[in-house]
Amino acid sequence: MREFSLPLRVYIEDTDAGGIVYYVNYLKYMERGRTELMRHLGFHKPAFIEQGLMLVVHSAQVNYRRPARLDEALTVTAGVNKLAHSYLVFEQRVLRDNELLCDGEIKVVCVLQKTLRPCPLPQPVRTAIARWAEHGGGAGSVTGSVIDNS
Amino acid sequence: MREFSLPLRVYIEDTDAGGIVYYVNYLKYMERGRTELMRHLGFHKPAFIEQGLMLVVHSAQVNYRRPARLDEALTVTAGVNKLAHSYLVFEQRVLRDNELLCDGEIKVVCVLQKTLRPCPLPQPVRTAIARWAEHGGGAGSVTGSVIDNS
Amino acid sequence: MREFSLPLRVYIEDTDAGGIVYYVNYLKYMERGRTELMRHLGFHKPAFIEQGLMLVVHSAQVNYRRPARLDEALTVTAGVNKLAHSYLVFEQRVLRDNELLCDGEIKVVCVLQKTLRPCPLPQPVRTAIARWAEHGGGAGSVTGSVIDNS
Amino acid sequence: MREFSLPLRVYIEDTDAGGIVYYVNYLKYMERGRTELMRHLGFHKPAFIEQGLMLVVHSAQVNYRRPARLDEALTVTAGVNKLAHSYLVFEQRVLRDNELLCDGEIKVVCVLQKTLRPCPLPQPVRTAIARWAEHGGGAGSVTGSVIDNS
Repeated sequence: MREFSLPLRVYIEDTDAGGIVYYVNYLKYMERGRTELMRHLGFHKPAFIEQGLMLVVHSAQVNYRRPARLDEALTVTAGVNKLAHSYLVFEQRVLRDNELLCDGEIKVVCVLQKTLRPCPLPQPVRTAIARWAEHGGGAGSVTGSVIDNS
Repeated sequence: MREFSLPLRVYIEDTDAGGIVYYVNYLKYMERGRTELMRHLGFHKPAFIEQGLMLVVHSAQVNYRRPARLDEALTVTAGVNKLAHSYLVFEQRVLRDNELLCDGEIKVVCVLQKTLRPCPLPQPVRTAIARWAEHGGGAGSVTGSVIDNS
Repeated sequence: MREFSLPLRVYIEDTDAGGIVYYVNYLKYMERGRTELMRHLGFHKPAFIEQGLMLVVHSAQVNYRRPARLDEALTVTAGVNKLAHSYLVFEQRVLRDNELLCDGEIKVVCVLQKTLRPCPLPQPVRTAIARWAEHGGGAGSVTGSVIDNS
Repeated sequence: MREFSLPLRVYIEDTDAGGIVYYVNYLKYMERGRTELMRHLGFHKPAFIEQGLMLVVHSAQVNYRRPARLDEALTVTAGVNKLAHSYLVFEQRVLRDNELLCDGEIKVVCVLQKTLRPCPLPQPVRTAIARWAEHGGGAGSVTGSVIDNS
């Protein structure tokens, strides 16, 4: 599966009194990864909001393998393993070099902002994701880069 | 000065790798105190938002005296030391029993939500705060209590 | 299954630009619920840390059903649906009155703080949890209350 | 005054129900800026911790000028306007292009981790900061760059 990849740094704000990254904050890292993938494809969050749409998390399954610590340089990845009419399933990992620290599957649904009811993903979004996921290639961005680890 | 008082508990989410409450989070505690004081006076946040108004922080001056630690029971207080046409200055403290951990002065301005431009505080809000601040007395609430430490 | 229950309030710190509780923060609410259940049973977090132990989250599966909004009064529950040698599985819900907003299953492992390797849950902890989970009854605490919704 | 500069992106985790960056989070941005300046000078946080030292915030004075919004690209700066025996005063700004959104003065004290009592800043730290602040020049890093806006 093709993965988008975003480097990040662990700051003190991310840690807890156990001396490690507070487990809840990996979900923030994962959202940053999804956001940057969407931006890479041309769809930043305000664009959704202006259309009266929102992408909301429907469910998350996260596994914590090894702790990250203050000041470490990590990478968060985002791949799409299912693209449906009104939702997406992301597969995501947080890595320190090649070591897997955390992975998860996040189902994200497109909803109308006013009612929070599901609605179809806009066709340009579906097309861009499908093209990205299936055909590989593609360029990096200032803050993230596309890698193909198939 | 009359103070409203709200008990709170330090959870792991509030701490950092130094083993103490992350200093930024005292500002969250202080906002909880201001929010509960306003609710006690009958003005919860959604009421402002429905009128197209918001209370936004204009400036904050905070002193960190002693650290709080995981699991401690603290109290945050909120008093009003200036009530102007379109802004309020809160004086706030975070205490562990009678020990002062953190104190601050927070200037909060009433703004129009759309433009974020200052506008007058609604008269009922001004009246209720003035009455509360000057005349003492008053009851507690489920989560907070009014104390008079003049 | 017996559930421990903790009331909480949605503050502005918990929300995001979508106008609802940021989905990551439900995990903070759930941890508060687990923490207060453990405290209710006599085992607060520092007690673990002093013994060189930590409870760390191994995995989490969370479903988001309906959004919570600014200022709402919610309840988070914590029940134990598996008690093993070195780990626990909590079943947790976030409710607004009787409406289910979010539920999840959180597997928590006891580890040595130094090595982060799994180790047995202390016997008094296992006994207290087993007794609480199986025999019902029990009193509330200042901030939470035990309910039996079997 | 010489300033170190770090680019950052506003993510949904940083915003609140007002649709803008939650004011508390500017303090996180500022700490990232200080951390990256210290790293640029060769002193990352774990190095302090290994010596039994910590840099803790003694006081903060922050002014909020204009709001930042979801998805914006910002810059946080960090300059040193006082370098004393056991403390530093940072002057910091958060900018969107050349527009000032937030500025603050943060006093940071070097303390012993065990007692949290003040102690002298290590001489190599003092020397490096003084040299950086006074002599200008200097290189960038992957995530931040040194600018001289005197």
